[in-house]
Amino acid sequence: MTMQTVSLNKSHDGMQGVYRHASRETGTDMTFSVYVPSHTNGAKQPVVWYLSGLTCTHANVTEKGEYRAACAELGLIFVAPDTSPRGENVPGDPANAYDFGLGAGFYVDATQEPFARNYRMWSYLTEELPKLVAEQFPVDAGRQSVFGHSMGGHGALTMALRHPDRYRAASAFAPIVAPSQVPWGIKALGGYLGDNKQAWRRHDAVALIEDGARFSDLLVDYGDADPFLTEQLRPQLLQAACEKANIPLTLRRQAGYDHSYYFISTFMNDHLRWHAARLNT
Amino acid sequence: MTMQTVSLNKSHDGMQGVYRHASRETGTDMTFSVYVPSHTNGAKQPVVWYLSGLTCTHANVTEKGEYRAACAELGLIFVAPDTSPRGENVPGDPANAYDFGLGAGFYVDATQEPFARNYRMWSYLTEELPKLVAEQFPVDAGRQSVFGHSMGGHGALTMALRHPDRYRAASAFAPIVAPSQVPWGIKALGGYLGDNKQAWRRHDAVALIEDGARFSDLLVDYGDADPFLTEQLRPQLLQAACEKANIPLTLRRQAGYDHSYYFISTFMNDHLRWHAARLNT
Repeated sequence: MTMQTVSLNKSHDGMQGVYRHASRETGTDMTFSVYVPSHTNGAKQPVVWYLSGLTCTHANVTEKGEYRAACAELGLIFVAPDTSPRGENVPGDPANAYDFGLGAGFYVDATQEPFARNYRMWSYLTEELPKLVAEQFPVDAGRQSVFGHSMGGHGALTMALRHPDRYRAASAFAPIVAPSQVPWGIKALGGYLGDNKQAWRRHDAVALIEDGARFSDLLVDYGDADPFLTEQLRPQLLQAACEKANIPLTLRRQAGYDHSYYFISTFMNDHLRWHAARLNT
Repeated sequence: MTMQTVSLNKSHDGMQGVYRHASRETGTDMTFSVYVPSHTNGAKQPVVWYLSGLTCTHANVTEKGEYRAACAELGLIFVAPDTSPRGENVPGDPANAYDFGLGAGFYVDATQEPFARNYRMWSYLTEELPKLVAEQFPVDAGRQSVFGHSMGGHGALTMALRHPDRYRAASAFAPIVAPSQVPWGIKALGGYLGDNKQAWRRHDAVALIEDGARFSDLLVDYGDADPFLTEQLRPQLLQAACEKANIPLTLRRQAGYDHSYYFISTFMNDHLRWHAARLNT
């Protein structure tokens, strides 16, 4: 697989890169960023996958996430993929909505037309991109973890629950925990996967847990000033599912915080330490 | 003076705001950001002024500067102004250059037409905005410091050298230290101030030092992979002037770093600690 370097900047003693490659899964060029901390020649480091929310590209967290100081200190490679395929021939939402289509891939493999050809973010992120990253970067593939924000929190939780042996840690900022039950998720899962609600359950953290999926432990932060909290995020649904399934969940309500990167960057350091503690054992 | 709140987000336990007001000096609306750390009711905190570089608004450092964690810890209010007046009737560079006019006020009061009416960033930043900030925020006006990047490093150094009693600390990332001697500065000072080179010397850190200005001590970082280093920045000119004038200068060459916010954010923490050590004595 080939990969182009879009930009490369030294930061916090490591290298922040942005890369582009032709994806087989999405049929498009895909852009992603990777931060590699300073390391001795030949050393391999654990990798943390960060999945972004609606409307985002790799750039939002790369610029606003404030993760590099902690990654440099803890020795974590940080990968930030895009949130959907993009390009001239990629179908989006006919109404140009922010919550479906471009910037809103919802981390599924679409089965519905006209999305099925390009919207394959699940396979892209669980198969194609990990292989590319393992080939091109000094990654210890045996030590991976995943987290994300909002729609990306949904992606992180579902990936962790379906691949509990691959990811040693998982966490989320203000995740969509039960897309089958909330407007953003109903629109997206219906649009990409059609009416078969059984197919939705494989992309719904709460439903996955109800259906038997397990994970060692989870960390979730949300802000109580988040405008999407009660209608779209509903963290209590995850809390109830985890309690019933005996999954240890650290669910923290952060007073006064909203849904923005001002919230994410505040707790980024905590999350990376949570991941490092589980990746470095 | 009145001020509108454009946005307000909790971050690192404090509040990151963006504000707009009608400036008397520039004859335009001006936007700026202020981060206020969490504090007990009635407490006043020292204020750090950050001046941005060419093409920037308040937003660049606010989003990419990674200053809030340190400001929260150290108890520093952080103010980030814009770099020029903006608006429909504000003249810019006829060729839409990035290095003159909009986004490139160079922290002077223009005397040349058509710029003299609006391009009054010196008076705006040394008089008007400090008064507004002292009125509207819990600032201890007796404890101020200033720093900046590139063109903003130039602004910070000249403000510190001309007001050594007002600012208790000053530092810069990759500053323009001798605008009278480099292309960016010659264009800007000529365009705003005309041909009288004596007027330029009041806006040139090296010339100010040669002419007798002094400051307690200075911290300057630059990257040796900065593409502007040898033609525009020339930190050695500041080093020579400081040596001759016995101004303690900590000048650090940072291997592999460029001119971007990836460089700035890496050393932001160091600079804020330098300021705090001098503000909190």
